Amino acid sequence: MIKDIIHKKRIGEELTEEEMREVFLGYLEGKVPDYQMSSLLMAICINGMTEEETFILTDLFLNSGDILSFSHIPGIKVDKHSTGGVGDKTTLILVPIVASCGIPVIKMSGRGLGYTGGTIDKLESIPGYRTDLSKQEIQSQVEKVGAVMIGQTGELCPLDKKIYALRDVSGTTDSIPLIAASIMSKKIAGGADKILIDIKVGSGAFMKTEEEAQKLSDIMIQIGKKYGKETRTIISSMSAPLGRAVGNALEVLEAISILDGREQGPLYELCIDLASSMVSMGKEISYEEAKILVLDAIDSKRAYHKLLEIIAAQGGRIDVLSVSPYQVEITAPVSGVIQKIDALEVAKLSCQLGAGRLSKEEEIDYGVGVYLHKLVGDSVQKGEKLFTIYQKDRTPLNYDISHIFEII
Amino acid sequence: MIKDIIHKKRIGEELTEEEMREVFLGYLEGKVPDYQMSSLLMAICINGMTEEETFILTDLFLNSGDILSFSHIPGIKVDKHSTGGVGDKTTLILVPIVASCGIPVIKMSGRGLGYTGGTIDKLESIPGYRTDLSKQEIQSQVEKVGAVMIGQTGELCPLDKKIYALRDVSGTTDSIPLIAASIMSKKIAGGADKILIDIKVGSGAFMKTEEEAQKLSDIMIQIGKKYGKETRTIISSMSAPLGRAVGNALEVLEAISILDGREQGPLYELCIDLASSMVSMGKEISYEEAKILVLDAIDSKRAYHKLLEIIAAQGGRIDVLSVSPYQVEITAPVSGVIQKIDALEVAKLSCQLGAGRLSKEEEIDYGVGVYLHKLVGDSVQKGEKLFTIYQKDRTPLNYDISHIFEII
Repeated sequence: MIKDIIHKKRIGEELTEEEMREVFLGYLEGKVPDYQMSSLLMAICINGMTEEETFILTDLFLNSGDILSFSHIPGIKVDKHSTGGVGDKTTLILVPIVASCGIPVIKMSGRGLGYTGGTIDKLESIPGYRTDLSKQEIQSQVEKVGAVMIGQTGELCPLDKKIYALRDVSGTTDSIPLIAASIMSKKIAGGADKILIDIKVGSGAFMKTEEEAQKLSDIMIQIGKKYGKETRTIISSMSAPLGRAVGNALEVLEAISILDGREQGPLYELCIDLASSMVSMGKEISYEEAKILVLDAIDSKRAYHKLLEIIAAQGGRIDVLSVSPYQVEITAPVSGVIQKIDALEVAKLSCQLGAGRLSKEEEIDYGVGVYLHKLVGDSVQKGEKLFTIYQKDRTPLNYDISHIFEII
Repeated sequence: MIKDIIHKKRIGEELTEEEMREVFLGYLEGKVPDYQMSSLLMAICINGMTEEETFILTDLFLNSGDILSFSHIPGIKVDKHSTGGVGDKTTLILVPIVASCGIPVIKMSGRGLGYTGGTIDKLESIPGYRTDLSKQEIQSQVEKVGAVMIGQTGELCPLDKKIYALRDVSGTTDSIPLIAASIMSKKIAGGADKILIDIKVGSGAFMKTEEEAQKLSDIMIQIGKKYGKETRTIISSMSAPLGRAVGNALEVLEAISILDGREQGPLYELCIDLASSMVSMGKEISYEEAKILVLDAIDSKRAYHKLLEIIAAQGGRIDVLSVSPYQVEITAPVSGVIQKIDALEVAKLSCQLGAGRLSKEEEIDYGVGVYLHKLVGDSVQKGEKLFTIYQKDRTPLNYDISHIFEII
């Protein structure tokens, strides 16, 4: 009985494969109600899952829907996933770098649900950009341009989707085995040959400590091994926003600046690191060898032109990409050094401006957002520009910005 | 936000009164869905509740419905509750004993949901017995006879009722603070001046260990103190069934035998103990003084006649109470001493016979059940009668009785 299975996990015992099939597949089929699944998920959040249980759950997620294959396109397909961050536009930067190093990239991304837009929302801020290419279009673009950046095709892991939606509303999101099974099942179903995971750690991330991030890394690598998909992880800090821009069109413009060599800093460094790992995996060369190729792709502007080429191939008109003209400059109230920029608070502010959605139905305003002129560690003079807010109109908004920046 | 409240309990923090009001009253009003409440309940099951949280929850339960008062009937009203047992007919025995010691008793009981019938089901096995007396009938019977045994009147603790139903189906029943708040709120709402709790401990009970039972006892006594209702507890074993009979009419007959002096043993001893505590509380005398009154009430047959008087006053015709004529005798397969009688297995068997209900809609067959000729510690010869099964008809049933008795 389902109650007995829940009780077993409540007292911290390991579930058998048969028990997991009964409860999870029963949930997918609508036989197990939400209130039983949410109490089981809470027991899993608190009491954890064994490695074996995590493997079984990944398998149940994976086999609940379509499993894509891009084996007809030559080359090792490396997929990358980030565990979520504010201002994370790394995909827009990595894909052209990796493609211009000669590795085919079929990058599927999602929309954002939460305070900020997802990669697909960012791409759709470019007028004309199509994220829903057909199978034939994907293949022909990869052959011609070397990369596509699209939305999810097929129905991947519907069981994970149903569980994820319930976790989101029942306070059961922060569980290492649940996160690992969710991400890895989708990456495997998406047809990746190798997988790179960017695990965010810090106050703005799911993983609050290095130790938790390391645990997540370990179990993901084990899952990858189980399916013969080499998996590597990079653990990166996520306390401040990633880069300067938070907001869809603003982030596309920042990605272009990075590839154009106009912008450096922590975001640039992270992208070099991730791209070097992807190229190393895709070409089966050392990280150091790969890094030389990556730096050359950027310095030569090949990656920059590749991004413009991908956007154009998918119908995007970067020349008419625009941000909101209603801008408010926020200046430093005191002189000092920036100690902290709270990623979560920046995200909330950008969501309030209209850059994110809190329910699936909400429309995103692509032109709004926040641009940080100063980053953590920078000195600032009283009265100097701290950041610019891009509003959707002239209506003055009530921002409580005092807890975004800490200046000492 | 509800998610934040759930998360707080997930990481083991104490909820404020405001947070508890938001989530629990929101649930009563239908604003908080089942799947959020069940994940919160699971977090409570695993991470516990502080004494303060348990007080707040009791108060929310209590104030969600009617609060009865019998202060117009003279005397200290002592209520008794048992945390559940197989073959528990103590109410039928205690009420007449206590009433015949001169203490007014308004005893409200429930129906059974699970493997065995509740006290109300047992009483309704007596043809003509009315459990739904009006307020006027209750008062006049207490004045004339000294006691009533009825179903619940008014709507007591609807929030507890809603939560209890969800706990039952979401694997979140075994939590000391949830059990304490649930029982104590109902006893207080039922108008008791003083409360006696019979806490069952053992394999067949919610509390598996003495330590857990002691914890439950402590928090219940604290809750009682908070409301100025003196609360005492008795911790008694519940591994074997209580007494010899399991089944509604069979249990009424057993209660009569106990009061008639035809039957002794552990059930008799427990009833003496509980009755002495109730009389001690009701008369504000010592336990020892009370015990003398209790033994005299039984030995003089006053308690026996009181039971018959209560039943008759409520319309019951004990002369036509009958058990099923389709009886099967089960004999001992070996000679030896009875080491164990599994209460849960006896309950399941009696439910299979038709004596209990697994859903609210099921009808109970009052005449069926099990009668144990031998109890734990008794010697038995191979071929001697172990127990009698009362079936609803002649159809041979498939009993797997091998795991009920352990004879060595």
